[in-house]
Amino acid sequence: MYKITKINDGVCASNAFFSDGVSAGLKANNAKDMAFIYSSSLCEIASTFTTNKMTAAPIRHFRAKGDFKTNFVLINAKNANAMTGNAGLLDIDEIMESLPKELINPVMSSTGVIGVRLPKEKIIAGAKLFDLSKKEPNAAANAIMTTDSFSKEIAFEVKLKDNSSFRIGAMAKGAGMINPAMATMLCFITTDADVNKNEMQEILDEVVLTTFNAASVDGDTSTNDTVMLLSNRESKVYNRDAFKEVLHKIMLFLATEIVRDGEGATKLVTYKVTGAKSDAEAQKVAKALSDSLLVKTALYGEDPNWGRIASTVGASGVEAKEETLSISFNDLCFYEKGKLHFDAEMEKKASKVMKLERFTISCDLGIANGSFTAYGCDLGYEYIKINADYRT
Amino acid sequence: MYKITKINDGVCASNAFFSDGVSAGLKANNAKDMAFIYSSSLCEIASTFTTNKMTAAPIRHFRAKGDFKTNFVLINAKNANAMTGNAGLLDIDEIMESLPKELINPVMSSTGVIGVRLPKEKIIAGAKLFDLSKKEPNAAANAIMTTDSFSKEIAFEVKLKDNSSFRIGAMAKGAGMINPAMATMLCFITTDADVNKNEMQEILDEVVLTTFNAASVDGDTSTNDTVMLLSNRESKVYNRDAFKEVLHKIMLFLATEIVRDGEGATKLVTYKVTGAKSDAEAQKVAKALSDSLLVKTALYGEDPNWGRIASTVGASGVEAKEETLSISFNDLCFYEKGKLHFDAEMEKKASKVMKLERFTISCDLGIANGSFTAYGCDLGYEYIKINADYRT
Repeated sequence: MYKITKINDGVCASNAFFSDGVSAGLKANNAKDMAFIYSSSLCEIASTFTTNKMTAAPIRHFRAKGDFKTNFVLINAKNANAMTGNAGLLDIDEIMESLPKELINPVMSSTGVIGVRLPKEKIIAGAKLFDLSKKEPNAAANAIMTTDSFSKEIAFEVKLKDNSSFRIGAMAKGAGMINPAMATMLCFITTDADVNKNEMQEILDEVVLTTFNAASVDGDTSTNDTVMLLSNRESKVYNRDAFKEVLHKIMLFLATEIVRDGEGATKLVTYKVTGAKSDAEAQKVAKALSDSLLVKTALYGEDPNWGRIASTVGASGVEAKEETLSISFNDLCFYEKGKLHFDAEMEKKASKVMKLERFTISCDLGIANGSFTAYGCDLGYEYIKINADYRT
Repeated sequence: MYKITKINDGVCASNAFFSDGVSAGLKANNAKDMAFIYSSSLCEIASTFTTNKMTAAPIRHFRAKGDFKTNFVLINAKNANAMTGNAGLLDIDEIMESLPKELINPVMSSTGVIGVRLPKEKIIAGAKLFDLSKKEPNAAANAIMTTDSFSKEIAFEVKLKDNSSFRIGAMAKGAGMINPAMATMLCFITTDADVNKNEMQEILDEVVLTTFNAASVDGDTSTNDTVMLLSNRESKVYNRDAFKEVLHKIMLFLATEIVRDGEGATKLVTYKVTGAKSDAEAQKVAKALSDSLLVKTALYGEDPNWGRIASTVGASGVEAKEETLSISFNDLCFYEKGKLHFDAEMEKKASKVMKLERFTISCDLGIANGSFTAYGCDLGYEYIKINADYRT
């Protein structure tokens, strides 16, 4: 058995990890716009990246290095270094070469506008401001924000029954997997658990499916999406079950924080799909619901327009039947196996649920046992405002 | 050879077709809300319906009748008769039985709110107001509107070289394939061409792929989408090539009119995708572009944010490479096989293109010869306004 406790200090919570944010003049008003994560001992790395074919330069640069360990990650906001061709890769080389020699295989990660070359000189100058002895995880979490309205951090300690312990901490940015021109999702997780790269990668691949891959603001996949998990193994302690459980907690928290911070979003909605022909079909329905403009605008309008839910299920392409479908908002079931219980009383109750900041829409397809849970938000005027006029 | 001439009178343009709209009290303020199409001789029918699994009752009712001819179509707005189970089918039976006996195998088509039983009595009373000798195609086109801001009609005459001729006319409603709770797409096409059901169906199936199936307002597919093509063969004249050409003209016009009338839309954009691995991959890209919230909001903001186009191509799941991709707005090519020509001068020109009410975004993937053209619109505040608070 083990005990999981929430602790402070985000990406600095684990032994021997350091982090800070500085201002390199990429954002206006001297806002912090560059961050680092440094470990005093080398880290093994597990990672997962965007499936977008227009993969940004930092991801291609990372992949080209093959298998390696590192003690340093450099992150910049305001420029994604995407659609920048070979020049984008050479820019990263040049920045890496300017860094102090004690930084081994430094890794770069970028978020911001697409199709513009990195402001190399500013980034090189900014990196000179880094103090590797700093433990300022919140400054780092703030520096990597773009359209985010709040920073996203979390950390846990795992205590095993022999009282030995390890830690995992993380930060993320993103206001949705939205806005490829800006609001890439980046997530950095640091741990001192004594776990090797292969095992970490295996666990990360599994956990990402029900967390980041189940979260959607607008269904767009950026050129730069990155989840990176660094272990320096300093605690010499590890327990697979506990590690996986905490990693799931962390990634689900950060994924839903990103959705909750979806551009213009006012609600976080959990879509619980059950009774589908398979888990894959359930996922298809959950994704269709979380991406549907009509569902999202009904949420924003706090309109219990269950017909849009039914229609979206029907349009999702999976096996579904009117006679076996049931729909609930939280525990209010107003459409049950083809029977409508939607009177004025029920509508009043449903409207009340829709005013909540978080609630669950359940769809039981009544076909078989496939299930999937996804996370989405509403779509309001603010989304249009942010995205119609982003670059200016 | 043949000559195609645009003519007036929509669904009444062909010989022996009659149509009108009446007010049955379904819409507020005595607005017309029921329409009919009547032919004095029996019609063969070709049709194509929504792929939504929650198929509305009128479509299930139509399909259950198998192979038949008809001389009468009854259309109502404000209520979709969808998610109404078996009761929805029985309601149609009852309405049909109330109609005069000279109407053979009458067909019903509905659009409006989902999950509410048809106001049967009002519809039965409304049908008694129909005067089958009326030729008021515009009144019919207005009666079937829901969130549409203008009615949609068109008709052509085809003259063959021996001076014989046939006609095809049509009306449609829909402000996008959007808003399943309301804005279903319905299209009725009438012809006196001497064409049989099987040949009509074959041509309709082909033409729908590059017209209605290439048009998107918000990517949602309603429970009621219907295209119905009625031929009474009264002209005794037919030419397959001409018929197909005119049918394509009509359906492309109506599909793009629906997009142009997309809820809150200010622009009609043609997405021309070429150079894909296959036509199917090109279609996938074109659909991803026309459905992308980020592209749609950039269009609304008249922001030449080409990075979102590139990112959407990359995220669409097809074979694509930065080095072979080219992107143009009308004839302005600012990203060409991995090279960016986007200086201040180009941006000024691109901004000018984006202020047009209609323009073309071309993406050449530079991989092979697959191509597809799709039609989409922008997404602005008005869409949210209409859809966030539709039912009230």
